[in-house]
Amino acid sequence: MHSPDIESTVSALRELLGERLSTGASVLAIHGRDEAYTPPALPDAVAFPESTREVSEIVKICAAHHCPVIPFGVGTSLEGHVIPIHGGISIDTSRMKRVLDVNEQDLDAVVQPGVTRTQLNEELRATGLMFTVDPGADATIGGMAATRASGTNTVRYGAMRENVLALEVVLPDGEIIETGTRARKSAAGYDLTHLFIGSEGTLGIITELTVRLFGQPETIQAATCAFETVEGAVDAVILAIQTGIPLARVELLDEVQMKGLNIKNPDMQLPEKPHLFLEFHGSEASAQEQVEMFKSISDELGGSEFQWATKAEDRNRLWKARHDAYYAAKALRPGCEGFVTDCCVPISNLAECIARTKKAIAASGLIAPIVGHVGDGNFHLVILIEPDNAEELRRANQLAESINQLALELGGTVTGEHGVGVGKKHYRQAEHGGGYTLMATIKRAIDPNNIMNPGKLVSLN
Amino acid sequence: MHSPDIESTVSALRELLGERLSTGASVLAIHGRDEAYTPPALPDAVAFPESTREVSEIVKICAAHHCPVIPFGVGTSLEGHVIPIHGGISIDTSRMKRVLDVNEQDLDAVVQPGVTRTQLNEELRATGLMFTVDPGADATIGGMAATRASGTNTVRYGAMRENVLALEVVLPDGEIIETGTRARKSAAGYDLTHLFIGSEGTLGIITELTVRLFGQPETIQAATCAFETVEGAVDAVILAIQTGIPLARVELLDEVQMKGLNIKNPDMQLPEKPHLFLEFHGSEASAQEQVEMFKSISDELGGSEFQWATKAEDRNRLWKARHDAYYAAKALRPGCEGFVTDCCVPISNLAECIARTKKAIAASGLIAPIVGHVGDGNFHLVILIEPDNAEELRRANQLAESINQLALELGGTVTGEHGVGVGKKHYRQAEHGGGYTLMATIKRAIDPNNIMNPGKLVSLN
Repeated sequence: MHSPDIESTVSALRELLGERLSTGASVLAIHGRDEAYTPPALPDAVAFPESTREVSEIVKICAAHHCPVIPFGVGTSLEGHVIPIHGGISIDTSRMKRVLDVNEQDLDAVVQPGVTRTQLNEELRATGLMFTVDPGADATIGGMAATRASGTNTVRYGAMRENVLALEVVLPDGEIIETGTRARKSAAGYDLTHLFIGSEGTLGIITELTVRLFGQPETIQAATCAFETVEGAVDAVILAIQTGIPLARVELLDEVQMKGLNIKNPDMQLPEKPHLFLEFHGSEASAQEQVEMFKSISDELGGSEFQWATKAEDRNRLWKARHDAYYAAKALRPGCEGFVTDCCVPISNLAECIARTKKAIAASGLIAPIVGHVGDGNFHLVILIEPDNAEELRRANQLAESINQLALELGGTVTGEHGVGVGKKHYRQAEHGGGYTLMATIKRAIDPNNIMNPGKLVSLN
Repeated sequence: MHSPDIESTVSALRELLGERLSTGASVLAIHGRDEAYTPPALPDAVAFPESTREVSEIVKICAAHHCPVIPFGVGTSLEGHVIPIHGGISIDTSRMKRVLDVNEQDLDAVVQPGVTRTQLNEELRATGLMFTVDPGADATIGGMAATRASGTNTVRYGAMRENVLALEVVLPDGEIIETGTRARKSAAGYDLTHLFIGSEGTLGIITELTVRLFGQPETIQAATCAFETVEGAVDAVILAIQTGIPLARVELLDEVQMKGLNIKNPDMQLPEKPHLFLEFHGSEASAQEQVEMFKSISDELGGSEFQWATKAEDRNRLWKARHDAYYAAKALRPGCEGFVTDCCVPISNLAECIARTKKAIAASGLIAPIVGHVGDGNFHLVILIEPDNAEELRRANQLAESINQLALELGGTVTGEHGVGVGKKHYRQAEHGGGYTLMATIKRAIDPNNIMNPGKLVSLN
């Protein structure tokens, strides 16, 4: 990496953007961290472009001065993706937040990268359509694509991987390209769209996205169901999926997480046992049939205490409680912070992976509730540690390490949805082997000066 | 491209493979063509490896002598992908056809690249699971991944793009890498799996695949439904998808195709009007509900003459008639050959695209029935021309050209599922623009000596 000429970069960018280039301390601080436990690092300046053309001009200026470029959505990532570890210019897409087009017949929408998922769904409300990827946080669609996000209803509707049809991207030399079309499929050429999905800003900046939409279901039924063991809950989900029940959501919360949930939600008070939180979508008859099929499976596998959330307000409360799992976890050890990790394994290995994870948690002496997108074999751990307690941080890192190694051993991946960022860099060789070398070859070819989010997903020498 | 040393290559390969390296005239001829109208070209030799290790050794030998390598499945491609236009070694995967693993709980299977889709489904039969991608031809799974194939039930179950979880690939230097895992999703690193899906053998050779499986539906209902106009049929499908009816198959056959189908299937005799061929999967109640919902939509939009294929044998006859569309088309002009093309547009533009296609067909003076995977916006044209009639071939090329240009104009792609191969090379710049330059950058980085299927999807200088 050539050493960047920051001063010239900032000066040229100020000429381009005026007030929309900021070097104010609080703005730098906001763009120097995310929601992870990664140590922060400040950008040299933050640019607020309003158009693809401006993003392209910014990148051209940065390229000319070998200055790092770090794309920024709203900073909800969990592995330090947006942290400018080598300084440079943070490109904040918050002023590019227009929904450009909604094609109701084609079930797609064209959006700018700074549109958040709830904003998009608000704008879609009158159409009867919905954007389904839901990572919990109100992330930007651009950030979600860049990190290959998924979430609670990926089991039914897919992750960003399945829900992006086309992209507009600014490459590391400032060129603007389009990948894909609004056609549902294509066999024409390399799949550049998927190359950028999950590239974490290391190959270019996404400036426009065409995303898939789905019709809002006629009926939604939600329920919670307690099991005596995690195995029982996982087996019920495996059988339900094999049977073809199109579960819209199926979340696993272990007994520790349930304890936190009860503290945080005094009006819920569910049994402190492993739970599935379920949602069924369909016509009234179809949703009802799914419910009955699932009930007969869960009865067989020791499920009990089905509690229904039939009214929309109860359902919202249920899913809010699930989405607020992080805060519920923190209620288990007030004053502590959550150190988060995730991994994903083939579902047949999920119960074993969780059982061994629980042993590792016990050995660590820490409290760490488990929440999982069980239909995908993906689970999260919120490890509770005291702020500024170096010893607990060390133990949390060790625990996360052992769980990620376990995921690899069980045929899985070190991250189902949180991404690589800074926190998962050291697993690249172990997970990808020769594939990592190929990733580096691609990175080097597309970004030879290594200006795009340097030091993250792929490290160049 | 360095000029290859064929003699040394063949001699080294013979030492490695013995009888499993062939230079026999009939073997070369089989590997010098596919099912397309592309002029054939012979390989210098055909290798029949039996393991990944052997593929790697073959590629290393070819790499050392700058000799082209052309992966070959069963030769059912339709755009000349497997034709060795620069000579070289055709690597035939037909001896790598073992199903290595079926994971019933995870709904996946690990297969060698030479396994065909019907072979896989035969081997799955006892499990109650199925592999769903169905391009009509009994292609190999390796070839289907390499060409990003799809087919009649992609509308419900996805294309190869959605149905491959992981790959093992031999790179152009002979190195063996793995991409992806059996976990259902991952946010770890560039999506190498999707980079190889659709790369048409230009970046490496796929030597192992992990594919998704689905449970066989409890109930299957199939039917044909006639419409007065193509627009009516397309509108019915749009509305059905918006309503959330999970159509398992929905095929459009125009009135010309129906005429051929009636000639070819004297026992069917359906009205010579645009038709939808439909299939519904689900529990008995759910399939029935889908049928009723679709009926009410089609009634509203001028659909009529629903004919049901309730028994398995009737259903098989129906789909055989659909899959044999090529032969039915040929029945319209006995003695002629079919020049095939496909394109794909956003479904909202499909009726217009087909209407304008029909005008272009009329202007060409040729007969060309239309069959489409209407739920995906994808349709095929079989242009009937006399063998060795240069003037008709010229008009067929011109017609295909105008339809592919039309697809681009209407926001689509020049190929929904047949791929680029040789036949669609000249659209690369028009469809991808700067994206094509990026594809060339990637190709150059991964295959700097341009030995992998040279002169196809990406041309290097």
